[in-house]
Amino acid sequence: MKIRLGENSYGKNAIQLSKIIRHPAYHEFRQITVSVSLKGDFEEAHTNGDNSKILPTDTQKNTVYALAKDHFKSSVEDFAIYLANHFVSTQPQVGTATVAIAEHLYQRIMLDGNEHPHTYIGGGSEKHTTVVTKDATSVSVTSGIADLLILKTTDSAFEKYIKDTYTTLKETSDRILATKCTITWEYDPLPADYTEQYNSIREVLLRTFAGHKSLSVQQTLYAMGAAVLESHANVKDVYLEMPNKHHIPFNLEQFNIRHENEIFMATDEPYGLISGRVTRE
Amino acid sequence: MKIRLGENSYGKNAIQLSKIIRHPAYHEFRQITVSVSLKGDFEEAHTNGDNSKILPTDTQKNTVYALAKDHFKSSVEDFAIYLANHFVSTQPQVGTATVAIAEHLYQRIMLDGNEHPHTYIGGGSEKHTTVVTKDATSVSVTSGIADLLILKTTDSAFEKYIKDTYTTLKETSDRILATKCTITWEYDPLPADYTEQYNSIREVLLRTFAGHKSLSVQQTLYAMGAAVLESHANVKDVYLEMPNKHHIPFNLEQFNIRHENEIFMATDEPYGLISGRVTRE
Amino acid sequence: MKIRLGENSYGKNAIQLSKIIRHPAYHEFRQITVSVSLKGDFEEAHTNGDNSKILPTDTQKNTVYALAKDHFKSSVEDFAIYLANHFVSTQPQVGTATVAIAEHLYQRIMLDGNEHPHTYIGGGSEKHTTVVTKDATSVSVTSGIADLLILKTTDSAFEKYIKDTYTTLKETSDRILATKCTITWEYDPLPADYTEQYNSIREVLLRTFAGHKSLSVQQTLYAMGAAVLESHANVKDVYLEMPNKHHIPFNLEQFNIRHENEIFMATDEPYGLISGRVTRE
Amino acid sequence: MKIRLGENSYGKNAIQLSKIIRHPAYHEFRQITVSVSLKGDFEEAHTNGDNSKILPTDTQKNTVYALAKDHFKSSVEDFAIYLANHFVSTQPQVGTATVAIAEHLYQRIMLDGNEHPHTYIGGGSEKHTTVVTKDATSVSVTSGIADLLILKTTDSAFEKYIKDTYTTLKETSDRILATKCTITWEYDPLPADYTEQYNSIREVLLRTFAGHKSLSVQQTLYAMGAAVLESHANVKDVYLEMPNKHHIPFNLEQFNIRHENEIFMATDEPYGLISGRVTRE
Repeated sequence: MKIRLGENSYGKNAIQLSKIIRHPAYHEFRQITVSVSLKGDFEEAHTNGDNSKILPTDTQKNTVYALAKDHFKSSVEDFAIYLANHFVSTQPQVGTATVAIAEHLYQRIMLDGNEHPHTYIGGGSEKHTTVVTKDATSVSVTSGIADLLILKTTDSAFEKYIKDTYTTLKETSDRILATKCTITWEYDPLPADYTEQYNSIREVLLRTFAGHKSLSVQQTLYAMGAAVLESHANVKDVYLEMPNKHHIPFNLEQFNIRHENEIFMATDEPYGLISGRVTRE
Repeated sequence: MKIRLGENSYGKNAIQLSKIIRHPAYHEFRQITVSVSLKGDFEEAHTNGDNSKILPTDTQKNTVYALAKDHFKSSVEDFAIYLANHFVSTQPQVGTATVAIAEHLYQRIMLDGNEHPHTYIGGGSEKHTTVVTKDATSVSVTSGIADLLILKTTDSAFEKYIKDTYTTLKETSDRILATKCTITWEYDPLPADYTEQYNSIREVLLRTFAGHKSLSVQQTLYAMGAAVLESHANVKDVYLEMPNKHHIPFNLEQFNIRHENEIFMATDEPYGLISGRVTRE
Repeated sequence: MKIRLGENSYGKNAIQLSKIIRHPAYHEFRQITVSVSLKGDFEEAHTNGDNSKILPTDTQKNTVYALAKDHFKSSVEDFAIYLANHFVSTQPQVGTATVAIAEHLYQRIMLDGNEHPHTYIGGGSEKHTTVVTKDATSVSVTSGIADLLILKTTDSAFEKYIKDTYTTLKETSDRILATKCTITWEYDPLPADYTEQYNSIREVLLRTFAGHKSLSVQQTLYAMGAAVLESHANVKDVYLEMPNKHHIPFNLEQFNIRHENEIFMATDEPYGLISGRVTRE
Repeated sequence: MKIRLGENSYGKNAIQLSKIIRHPAYHEFRQITVSVSLKGDFEEAHTNGDNSKILPTDTQKNTVYALAKDHFKSSVEDFAIYLANHFVSTQPQVGTATVAIAEHLYQRIMLDGNEHPHTYIGGGSEKHTTVVTKDATSVSVTSGIADLLILKTTDSAFEKYIKDTYTTLKETSDRILATKCTITWEYDPLPADYTEQYNSIREVLLRTFAGHKSLSVQQTLYAMGAAVLESHANVKDVYLEMPNKHHIPFNLEQFNIRHENEIFMATDEPYGLISGRVTRE
């Protein structure tokens, strides 16, 4: 059997870029992490070390910074589409360009009830993400939220599951439900205003999580995905990854202290991981 | 020369504890990381393996969870003082107990302009910290803010510094100033309401950072510390660690694009680290 | 358009398990991270909150620990196959069970030229991994090496690539090639002795990396994958992810110091990411 | 009470530098992380924003790279001393310069029983560290090992400790002892050959850890420190931080499986932290 090259790609990851957009009344500060990945006619590079069709990843990085001045002006989706199109249209050997952007969120600090014009606070784990894939004839845009830590202190139960030889978990009608979730959705058709869509979908996700009487993470996951699809006709499907950030009741009764569902051990590992796609027929 | 034991301590670190405090109108969710460290008469444990004066770190952990039910009701400072006192007063061999707590910040999500009664969003890097040290006769309380990421897009310069053989940095009258800072302050005398003090000091720090026309990180650091001392008579001194989160102007001119101080490379390493204490004479 | 559940799975991740296997002459210490993921008939759990077919992730965790006593005795592959089969064969609602194991590597310390019988040193980033996927009729075993940091100080060039408006990278006939690579390969047919196969493949990968006169990361990647396929008939294909750990020549000439390719800046971000599959026709 | 500046310092942290030293028969690859911290006459910088005595941290970084060519040739201690002396002797406003270096360890790969001349494997957590502090008249050198993960599967007990209301830990005469330790020692007088000293001290630490019949982490810590002082007359004292990497016996008996001290849960948090100094009278 002959040996051959299969699927392959290359690009620059983790390009850290920040931009100041100076508005008359305030400065807008944006910080993003950009990754570029190219697929195409790269067989000779692998088999013969022929670099004549290789655009170096260092050049990809320079390109991202250079094009940000004129083309990163609004949503990360618009910038990612521009970048992906640039690589496909200027590099004939590139069949598909994928540009992924994660935006780190900053908020202007509040002083005396007003947003300060140029001072920001950041540091949250939540990021607004997008992955744009472009070839000669088509483009796909999948946006999302990464590492959103949400938690509810009630309206979550977990009961009536299978018991077997190895079961020790106790059923509960009232537990903490916490997850550092990553949610993505594909737009089809593409919207005119990505930022408006993002804000609207994020609001639906939070509202559904808050209002849901959860019987399991699976049920909450499905409810969140379905709510987005019901409210946003241009979302094709929603994929949710919900790692369970367990808050385990500490056994106070062993010390003759009454258990009233108040004191928990917060654990990172091991963790339940529930993931699923909600889609349209 | 004889060999002997010098300074030593032991304890349990990174005890992850969460609590629900159920108020009539809403649930208060709190998550803290607690570390306990004990010093005292532990020489025989080291030199002879005599554990008769050792309270195991596992027991320290259990104690933190057990005491949280009745004694973690308001500020992390009050709980840390209670814990430190517990170890000193119940364990005669313990000379000094140090309890450090970092509180992870959660906010109730906003829906339709109202805070939801039991749904939270977390994930920020900022933490409210305290370190309480207690011996038989005295107690010290040093509180602070850890990993607060703040940034301003203007009102920061860096000029007129030393130039030598190895200088390549260009002077600038307008740069991004960003820092993921950790700030601590010692209370003396101790306040009645730690949470009120914390919120008030945090507000002074943010206000000073925002309003300061910075000529260097050192100058901003000093201004922030001094502002706290001026406004809070019961703060003895302030210690600030300000790692510089560099946003380096990307060289667009090499591509014949005009530099207008808009596009930056955000870098984590290497980083400038400025630290200093502001105190009273 | 009706909304429905698409692909979904759930399970317990990051189960940290260690085991002592007591041999007459020495103790064998093993530490692994296990993740379980189940797919099957879970639609009612999502849409109705019906947990009657849900084996809790907590029970999955208990099962892994309980079965480790008798069934984790040799390779991680054998244990993963046993676990995956357990879930598929005891839970009729489970269509496919995937068990992923990463083994952390420990070596007995050397004293006076001998391995100590029960003292180990660990802490390396490299891990031996396997992913086993099992359904009612078939099993696939994909093993690999994760986070292997390898580096060569010469025999690596990067030249004759595309130059465009945004090119600043200089060609080099002699650079450092470093990568923290993750490599996986699928066995088909399955071998009798997974540990022997793993050691043999790892040796081929290191030998090829060391001996290769690299004209690009792509070429080295292909050579490494091809060497495994040429030497191991029961490997179906090899997938390599080679993030470039850049060591960038520091510009000494700006200080009138001669550049002799000696002093480098080691950077983590941004990084080139080259990935590809080498397979058989 | 007047407000004034207290202790303060500034410098560049996390300068990542690698070097190839080309020997006739092989290439020596070295990778280090350097941090510089300066103390001195910097009051005006803080209070007035006067930068005339500030050597920028960017220049410090350049200096480290520039001086590495001629002065990083053997031990990290020799290079750190050279750097610290450079800052103190060329910058009159600097009272004290502290240079900390952590060396990342690489080993040449073995092929056919021989070390390959220019191919390395790295990625271990263990680092060789040094902190050099220099003022006009004196120098101190404190070297060490950071993040050394060592483990023994027997010869470790923990019994006869205090029991109180909150005790749940069971006594054990045979447990896993594991620690990711950081150990530092001060040289006085300074040795001629730092690398030889480092290797010799590391060997004593490992030998003592392996051979010790441990009754507690405290006792092992003391034995390790004492062994270094007994064997190395030019070591003044030894400081050891030994975070306990717990391997907790999994309760198999709840499933009617016999407990034979074989299966453990490896946990990162919470963790016992034992630290102490062993010194001379």
